[in-house]
Amino acid sequence: MTSGNRLIIDETNFFAEAVGDQGIAAGDLEGLLPRLDGLRQRLEGWRKGSEPSFFHLPFEPDHLETVYDWGQRITAGFEQLVVLGMGGSSLGGEMLVQCLGGSEEFGDVLFIDNVDPLRIEETLEGVAWDETMVLAISKSGNTAETLAQLLTILPHMERAVGGRAVREHLLAITEDESGALAEVARSLKVPVLPHPPVGGRYSVLSPVGLLPAYAAGVDVEAVVDGAARMAERCLSGDMDTNPAFRGGGAQYLLAERGKTQTILMPYFERLNKVGSWFRQLWAESLGKLDADGNHRGLTPARAIGATDQHSQLQLYLQGPADKTFTLFIADEMIYFGDRIPARFKDIEAVQPLAGHSVGELLAAEFMATRETLTRNGRPNRTIRMPALDGSVLGELIMLLEVETVVVAELLGVDPFDQPAVEESKVLTREYLAQMEGRINL
Amino acid sequence: MTSGNRLIIDETNFFAEAVGDQGIAAGDLEGLLPRLDGLRQRLEGWRKGSEPSFFHLPFEPDHLETVYDWGQRITAGFEQLVVLGMGGSSLGGEMLVQCLGGSEEFGDVLFIDNVDPLRIEETLEGVAWDETMVLAISKSGNTAETLAQLLTILPHMERAVGGRAVREHLLAITEDESGALAEVARSLKVPVLPHPPVGGRYSVLSPVGLLPAYAAGVDVEAVVDGAARMAERCLSGDMDTNPAFRGGGAQYLLAERGKTQTILMPYFERLNKVGSWFRQLWAESLGKLDADGNHRGLTPARAIGATDQHSQLQLYLQGPADKTFTLFIADEMIYFGDRIPARFKDIEAVQPLAGHSVGELLAAEFMATRETLTRNGRPNRTIRMPALDGSVLGELIMLLEVETVVVAELLGVDPFDQPAVEESKVLTREYLAQMEGRINL
Repeated sequence: MTSGNRLIIDETNFFAEAVGDQGIAAGDLEGLLPRLDGLRQRLEGWRKGSEPSFFHLPFEPDHLETVYDWGQRITAGFEQLVVLGMGGSSLGGEMLVQCLGGSEEFGDVLFIDNVDPLRIEETLEGVAWDETMVLAISKSGNTAETLAQLLTILPHMERAVGGRAVREHLLAITEDESGALAEVARSLKVPVLPHPPVGGRYSVLSPVGLLPAYAAGVDVEAVVDGAARMAERCLSGDMDTNPAFRGGGAQYLLAERGKTQTILMPYFERLNKVGSWFRQLWAESLGKLDADGNHRGLTPARAIGATDQHSQLQLYLQGPADKTFTLFIADEMIYFGDRIPARFKDIEAVQPLAGHSVGELLAAEFMATRETLTRNGRPNRTIRMPALDGSVLGELIMLLEVETVVVAELLGVDPFDQPAVEESKVLTREYLAQMEGRINL
Repeated sequence: MTSGNRLIIDETNFFAEAVGDQGIAAGDLEGLLPRLDGLRQRLEGWRKGSEPSFFHLPFEPDHLETVYDWGQRITAGFEQLVVLGMGGSSLGGEMLVQCLGGSEEFGDVLFIDNVDPLRIEETLEGVAWDETMVLAISKSGNTAETLAQLLTILPHMERAVGGRAVREHLLAITEDESGALAEVARSLKVPVLPHPPVGGRYSVLSPVGLLPAYAAGVDVEAVVDGAARMAERCLSGDMDTNPAFRGGGAQYLLAERGKTQTILMPYFERLNKVGSWFRQLWAESLGKLDADGNHRGLTPARAIGATDQHSQLQLYLQGPADKTFTLFIADEMIYFGDRIPARFKDIEAVQPLAGHSVGELLAAEFMATRETLTRNGRPNRTIRMPALDGSVLGELIMLLEVETVVVAELLGVDPFDQPAVEESKVLTREYLAQMEGRINL
């Protein structure tokens, strides 16, 4: 199952040798090692299963068994899967499906991750309920949007398949048996799969992310194998061989020098959702108060090559020096796409293009952007995927998760909580309770 | 054509009275007025047509005539429109089509705004060339990606409709008659419409944005009328009545206090592309060197409510105080969507939802997020669209354009150039020229 492909990480342009005084020194990075020793010991404990952790997920064969069991039932019995979930309940699956999905034996896997009434209406218009499985995911089981989605869809399903049969078309993933999702599921006699005891944004390597991926035809075992392989590498106590210590440490040092914005820029549209998934992971894990009450955090942003060269590159090059960049590319892409015909090659602007594939043009733009960022003193790194496959994507997922935990450790914040968002949930209920008749926004 | 609806802008939460010492004082805003007097005079000149300007576009009836003329030919003769363009050649049209499009008489309007070979392949698989018009847009005519798109698609078109008939299926918009796009068009005997003499990111109110919008069924006259109405308001020399001076001035003052990130967060997915269009406008116009060689600029970011409450809100509330927020909502949305059934209302987490529409839930989340940002001292403003129609969207477009120019004036940068991106275009050609056989990324 596992390809021989491996992620290739090039951090040369994070360093002062490449980008001048905006970059870091090798000695500074090495100097972080003592501050990471506690984390390294915790990683070792997590690897052994000492306590629940995202880091242990790829070593738990139960998850793959659940995914194969339910995944086969879904693909054998249905034509479509609709996933209801917010944030971490949705983004991991969306990433796997967008990057690697595309099954000829199964129809669409749709994600409903908002309560926009028009979007829900448009999405549901195309759904044939009698051929559809609905998967509702909420760790607590009390996520207002997910409950609203489920309860709104339920009458549509019941009308289509009959009240009793609806239980054959529904599946829930939740952790808390006293939560509302578990209670609704019991009442409808709908099966419930356990949500692993990790936060939603760290749940992609469990059925939360892997089950939708399986339905979309993704080789989930390769993803898990890739993640496990990267996890083992992240146990090293050596800055040179631990990719997450290097990558997380370098980004922390750059943030301390004012580069607090983290731009993820894939040159491959299939990788777009990696940015969406990473954006939650990085923002919710790092953006919070440290023990001294300081506001800490790095702000993630998605960009896409080559499109955003025509939108953001001017700012990246000449705006404030407050950003670091991670550029992604999948090598195989170069060999895709038609060759640009030589027909108009006498025209000056066409001549450089003629005879090259569209993928080659994109690769040249990637190389040019990397070079221009570097010449302008903007720290950047490159992550190359020799092929876009499950094994390499699994490595990338685990790398970004551990890097997040590394930066949190250095910032002195807890990467696993999100204490600030409760207030707005309480306020939402209060505003809802006040709503009657004409509403004053 | 024009509705009575008007944009409702609420900047209360930009001020210290609402958000404490992170906010601005009314006197500071008033104090900017003398620094904006030169701009006010230039705006007046632009209004009169003293020199080419985005500000004059809504007062030029020729553009609407061109749009009606060609728009009617396209919708009468074809089923689909494919737009080729990068950055400002694409984003304005995409915004109008996503926000307001949806014609029962015409099929899709597709935008190809990248050279991702897989994306191009997937997009083109569904195109029936004999029923399709292709519109290629490039101001200079030398945009590498647009030329690559056009030249790659051309053989597919020729095979489908025949070599000579291809000219009936192609239309170009470009400014420079010596550019490659004009030259290709002449060679193929394809008609060329003039690109207005303004930068691509300021071109939406010309055929560049309006022609794709017309094909998608958008009331383009309402858009232009709304923009003209807002332009007139932006001529005022009074801080209280000039919305762009107020909005731009406030965001400048907040940026001077370290809030250099501008978050646009619509609570309505149809408005998503407003963020993509604004992101180019704001980044390319502001991110550059001032006269003293300082790196200036504000970094835009898109977010979407309520989804990103589960992704970014933790960072927004407790991370560094380096952001301002503009929340959008369309009032009418509240009345959309099914009511959430009362069936499970005895379950604690369901009770607050039962009986409310999905739109009401989204509105309550919007109000809760606004309130939580304010309580946490995070400056924010609200832009309400009573209805999502062309008139209101036209107002919003002009407001954001003039605000951008206001901030540029105060930062001391030229909002209309993009001097830094040329280097990467040169490097792209160099890397392409070196590419032969196996490529080393």
